[in-house]
Parts: sequence; structure tokens; C-alpha cells
Amino acid sequence: VRCEVVAVGTELLLGQVVDTNSALVGDRLALAGIDCHYQTRVGDNEARLAAVLRLALDRNDAVVVCGGLGPTPDDVTREALAAALGVPLERDPAMAERVRGIFAERGRPMPASNLRQADRPAGCAFIHQVSGTAPGLVCPAGDGKVIYALPGVPHELEEMLERAVVPDLRRRAGGTTVIRSRVLRTWGVAESALAELIGDRVAAQTNPTIAFLARGVEGIQVRLTAKAEGEEAARRLLEAEEVALRDVLGDLVFGVDDRSMEVVVGDLAAGRGLTIGVAESLTGGLVGARLTEVPGASGWFRGSIVAYDRRVKHRVLGVPEGPVVSAAAAGAMAEGAARVLGADLGLGVTGVAGPAPQDGRPPGTVFLAVALGGATEVREARLPGDRHRVRQYAAISLLDLARRRLLAGR
Amino acid sequence: VRCEVVAVGTELLLGQVVDTNSALVGDRLALAGIDCHYQTRVGDNEARLAAVLRLALDRNDAVVVCGGLGPTPDDVTREALAAALGVPLERDPAMAERVRGIFAERGRPMPASNLRQADRPAGCAFIHQVSGTAPGLVCPAGDGKVIYALPGVPHELEEMLERAVVPDLRRRAGGTTVIRSRVLRTWGVAESALAELIGDRVAAQTNPTIAFLARGVEGIQVRLTAKAEGEEAARRLLEAEEVALRDVLGDLVFGVDDRSMEVVVGDLAAGRGLTIGVAESLTGGLVGARLTEVPGASGWFRGSIVAYDRRVKHRVLGVPEGPVVSAAAAGAMAEGAARVLGADLGLGVTGVAGPAPQDGRPPGTVFLAVALGGATEVREARLPGDRHRVRQYAAISLLDLARRRLLAGR
Repeated sequence: VRCEVVAVGTELLLGQVVDTNSALVGDRLALAGIDCHYQTRVGDNEARLAAVLRLALDRNDAVVVCGGLGPTPDDVTREALAAALGVPLERDPAMAERVRGIFAERGRPMPASNLRQADRPAGCAFIHQVSGTAPGLVCPAGDGKVIYALPGVPHELEEMLERAVVPDLRRRAGGTTVIRSRVLRTWGVAESALAELIGDRVAAQTNPTIAFLARGVEGIQVRLTAKAEGEEAARRLLEAEEVALRDVLGDLVFGVDDRSMEVVVGDLAAGRGLTIGVAESLTGGLVGARLTEVPGASGWFRGSIVAYDRRVKHRVLGVPEGPVVSAAAAGAMAEGAARVLGADLGLGVTGVAGPAPQDGRPPGTVFLAVALGGATEVREARLPGDRHRVRQYAAISLLDLARRRLLAGR
Repeated sequence: VRCEVVAVGTELLLGQVVDTNSALVGDRLALAGIDCHYQTRVGDNEARLAAVLRLALDRNDAVVVCGGLGPTPDDVTREALAAALGVPLERDPAMAERVRGIFAERGRPMPASNLRQADRPAGCAFIHQVSGTAPGLVCPAGDGKVIYALPGVPHELEEMLERAVVPDLRRRAGGTTVIRSRVLRTWGVAESALAELIGDRVAAQTNPTIAFLARGVEGIQVRLTAKAEGEEAARRLLEAEEVALRDVLGDLVFGVDDRSMEVVVGDLAAGRGLTIGVAESLTGGLVGARLTEVPGASGWFRGSIVAYDRRVKHRVLGVPEGPVVSAAAAGAMAEGAARVLGADLGLGVTGVAGPAPQDGRPPGTVFLAVALGGATEVREARLPGDRHRVRQYAAISLLDLARRRLLAGR
């Protein structure tokens, strides 16, 4: 089964809204083993949308349309579907009752235009809403082909996609094949270095397939995608490949799937019963902000001293007089953070975000430090990119240093 | 002139990367007054890309292709262009020399595949790179039509688009009409309230047109777009409308165009010769991180104490014992920040990010404080959304409070 994704909305063409719906649908189709060769965006224009739908039916077995199902005059997906299929639009009395009921429940008067949501091209079935008022549509299109229409509100779209569309497409595809993926998150190596380490394996492997995804300051992700008869077989394939890759990559892999660096650091600290305190200079609060994004951070995170001004470094953290972009300053910041914040593990980062050099050091120079149990460890790094990226890279680099120290068990 | 945008890359179809390039091109075309009725995404497949290009030429006057110009085998835009145009691919000796030169300069050996970037369909011209090695292409396609091909790396794409593509399209459109836009950034009102304030004006205005763009934690933007004969006339139209809207909106407008809240706060502080110190609880460092994103922040930003743990609030900031999600705690945090960090203006924020309540307060409860010249002002707010959004909204709300205090001149 081959499926095209059509996103509807003039705001998408004008670049006022980035089309994340198509990416979501593309991802779910790929995971279900449904091929997708084209995605099209078109404005709120009935004739052009109808033409796009006819073309999509020509070159595919199925089409998922996103958006244009609301009650306002610029929502034309129902009309375009009827035109593309060559059938009339009919108002469904039961659905009209339902739409009226939703408004009555909320105690709000219903604009008459909302009844348009009870319209469907003849022969199409509704996909019922669990939230919102716009139902989706499933439209048989001849030759065993089908068009699904889903509302453009992202969480409504996702819910209907997973409940109604993907299972139906999988049934049509007829296979019992399961497609599952797993992501290994890495930090600390460039994509080219990663390719050198596991490039042969990536090239040779067909099931699971292995792909690199560069995620900027989130590191480089290695995505395994396995195809198998049944959950359990897919899981075994992923498991075996993960073990083989970890043999080579070792602790470059910091997390799996949605486990971010800050979640991993928090779990390691909590697991050892340690609290964390941070002293930040060029990152300005980014390290604290990432750690406190984790629910439950209050169990192991004490706080962060953002010592942007050099006087704050000296007076609040006790950093000795002298250059503040230095290994000595980073070490003193880590120790000062632990002391002032009453934390077991202290982290410190100082450096030059740019655009101007500082203390004779070029932008991108950073010193990272971790202090734990009386031993302080400092690393120097040269980070690429502009001010924004240097700050972001410095933050995750510091968290990675903490992760390694916590893993080492010292 | 009508222009289609074609984005190339299997990773886009699989949803591994969200297609922001098309949104960017759509935005720039709209601002240049070029109509765009379709955007298409297609994978790294020569035959399908060639078919998409032929269709795009059929239904438009111009096409902008994004991506597929790199050196690796999955980069097939050059080949597909040649196929769509029915011309052979030729290697340009001067460009080959240039590509070799770039590698020689960097002292790196050049993989032979990089010379593919010196290939162009017969009759096409290069758009020279200012960074990176992949040049763009301008391809005459008969009947006065044209295809532009740009690299998929966002900053390279944007640079070439603005330097070479948009001016050429405008010239082809032949008009002397200038389209210019201006964005008024607002914070502190919901979209529906904003619509009540200026809805009549939005509905009535045709030049400039007025549109709302909800930008989440960056607030709601009011975008004016004027069409005029010449720069000066467009500027006058925007100017007059901005004055009229500001009459109604007053200090709800915090910035214009790309001036973010943190830039505005920094400029106000610098203009009055004041330094800023912050004490943060639920935001965890977000306020400091935003302020230090501004180049030159070291001139007016002292630092931030992220007092996540209640003991840090008491011991480091001198917050009195008692509930820490309270007006009293926020005020003491602002005063403590100014004192400990040696700043003129102190800011403090405490609250409940969720998911669990704290000190008997539900998630979304925040207290914001600003201390300046011996006077401390505290505001309570109830912020919507999940943990992530409550934290982000709290950070910009605190900055907005600082802005209003600095504007008030007290």
C-alpha cells in the first residue's frame, strides 16, 4: 500500500505555520510499513484541493488529508472530496444531532455553520471525534483505493490517525508484519567519526536498518528499524542490534528513545542518592533549565548559580581572582556550587560564547568541571558555531561530563 | 508569477526531519508578492523527483527546489533536473576547480564524489555559494519558466534565496510594487481579547493587511503587510497603521519585528544604566538563559540564583521561613537577588510548574516580583498548560514585569 499525505491550509503555504502534521503522519506510516512517496501542501481552495486529491489517487493507493474540516468558510475539504470523487455532499442527520448536542452540553449557542461538520460526500463514513467537534472521514475511492480526511488540530489528528487510519491501512496492506524502531542517543562524537565506527554495520544491515539523524545539541541519534512477524520477533531483532552497536559505541550512547541527557543524569544522581548543584557562566541558566525540565527534579537538584559577571564568580562562588575563562576558575565554580548550594555533586562551566573573545580566548573555548567527593575534574573543549550554539553545546557537554562521572561511580 | 516549492529528501517523508525550509521559502515568496499554490515533498528518487518537477512546471511559472545538491549518491536533484528539462548533465571545469580549491584551502583530501557538485544540466547557471561547497542552480525551462535549485542546509538556502532567487522572481513579475511587513509583538492578552480590541480594524483593513500569529511563549504577533509603489510609500503605510494600532494596544506591544522581550529589557536597563539580577525557582534558569542570549548582556546582567530547593531560597537569598510559593517569598527573592548579585534591579519568580501541587497551590500558580530603588512589586498569575509551558510562560511574564517597571521609570 502506498499512501500520499496532503496538508490543507493557506497558512502553510505562507510559511506562517510549519507543517508538523505531515511529518507526524509520515512517521506513523513509516513505522507501520506503509510507503509514502509524496507529500503535498495546498491552500484553502476547493478546486485546487480537488485536483490535488485526484492526482494523489492516481499515483497512490491511499491518501491522508490533514485539515480543512472545521466550520468556517475557508474549510473546504468536504466539498473538495465530493468534487474529486464525483459524488454529492449530504448532511447526516445523526451527526447533525451530535454536533448540536456538543454545543448544548457546553451551554453555548451554536453558529449554524457548525452543521457543515455533519456533511459528508455520499458513500463516505465518519471517523468519530473523541475531542473537538469535527469528525474525520473515510472515503472509498474505487479500485480498492481510499481517502482519509483528518482534522488539522495536531492532537485530534494524531488520535484519529492511530485509532482509525493506521490500523485500517495495515489491514489493507494485508501483512502481519510489525515494524518497530529504537533510537540510541549519542553525544561526544561527530557524525563522520560515528560513521567510521559503525559505518560498515550501517551499510551491511538490512533488518534492522540503521540510520543516523543529526539532532544538533541533542547529539546524533542512531535509529534502528526492524521488520518482523510479531512484536516479540521485532523486539529480539532490535535487542540484538542494540547490543552489537553498544559493543562498539560504549558510553557514547547516553540514552535510548525519549530519554534525554537531563533525564539520564537525574536518574543516575537519584539512584546514588546524590544531589546536584551547578555554577554557570556563559550558559546563563541553560544547565539549570534543562535539569529542571525533568519532573521530580526537586528530589536531586538543589539549584544553580548563574555567575555571569566576574564579581559574582569571586564573591558568591569564591572563585580566586584571575582570568575567569580558565581551568582553575571552572574547578573553583564546581566546588563553589556544591558548597554554596549544599549539593553533593558540583558542576561548573565557564567559557567564551562570542561574538568577541574574552581573557585572550577565542569564542567556543569552554572549561567544564565536576566536583564530587573531594575530587575535581576539569575538561577543556572547543565548541563550533555561533553564540547560540556554543551556549547550547556547552550545556549538554557539562551534563555529559556529569553523566560520565556518575557512571564511573567515583 | 506563480511559484511552487519542492522539498527533496526521504527523511522529510519519514517524518524524521520537519520541513522548515518550505515554510521559509513560502514566507519569503509571500512577502515578495509571489503567489504559491502548492508545495510538494518527494524522496531522494530521481524518477519521482523528475516527474514532480514536470508537474510543477505545468501548473506554475517558477519552481524552487530545496535540497538534494550534496555530494553523496542520494543527492539526485541535478540528475532529476536534467531529466525533467530533457538536457544532458555537464561538468563545469571552473566549478570543479573551485570545489577542489575549497578542500585544498581546508587542507583536507577531496572525495572524488564532491566533483558532482560541479555538474549542471546544460543551459543552467550556477548560484555561487558564500559558505559550504554546493552551488545552487538557475535553470531556464522554456516558455519563460524557470527552476531554481537550492541546497537544503537552512542557512545556505536562506542566503541564496534572498540574494539570488527572490530578486530574480520579482524582476520576472515585472511589477514595481513593493511588499513590506512589520510585526508588532504583544504579551499579556489572549488572542480573543486582542481580537476584541482591534478586530474591527483587522476586518476593515486591506492595505496594510493585518493578521494575528499566535507564537506561544513569544506572545501573539500582529503582522502588518503593505503593498505600495516604492519603499517609501510602503514604509508610510506601515508607520500609519502601527501608530493607529499602538493607540489601542498601548504597552501590550513590547517589541517590533525581531526585537524579543529579552532584547527590549536589556536595552531599557542599559539605557538607564541599571544592572539586573534574578532569583528563579520553577523556571530553573530560563530567565537567565533568555537574558544571556542577548549579545552584550554582560554590560547589564549580573547573574541569576536558581534556588530550586527551598533551603537555597532561605540560606542563599534570605527568603524567610514559610511557604515558598507565596507573594512574600517572591518579593524576598527579588530583593535577595539584587543584594547577593550586586544588581540595581532584582527579579524573582516562584510557583508551581506541576504536575503535582505545592504548598497547597495548584500547578500554574506563579508569583512574580521586581525590586528597584527600595520598592518591591509582586504580581500573582495563573498560567495555563503543562509543566513545560508553565515554566516558559513564567519566564516571559517575569521579563514583561521588568519591562513595565523599567518603562514606568521608577
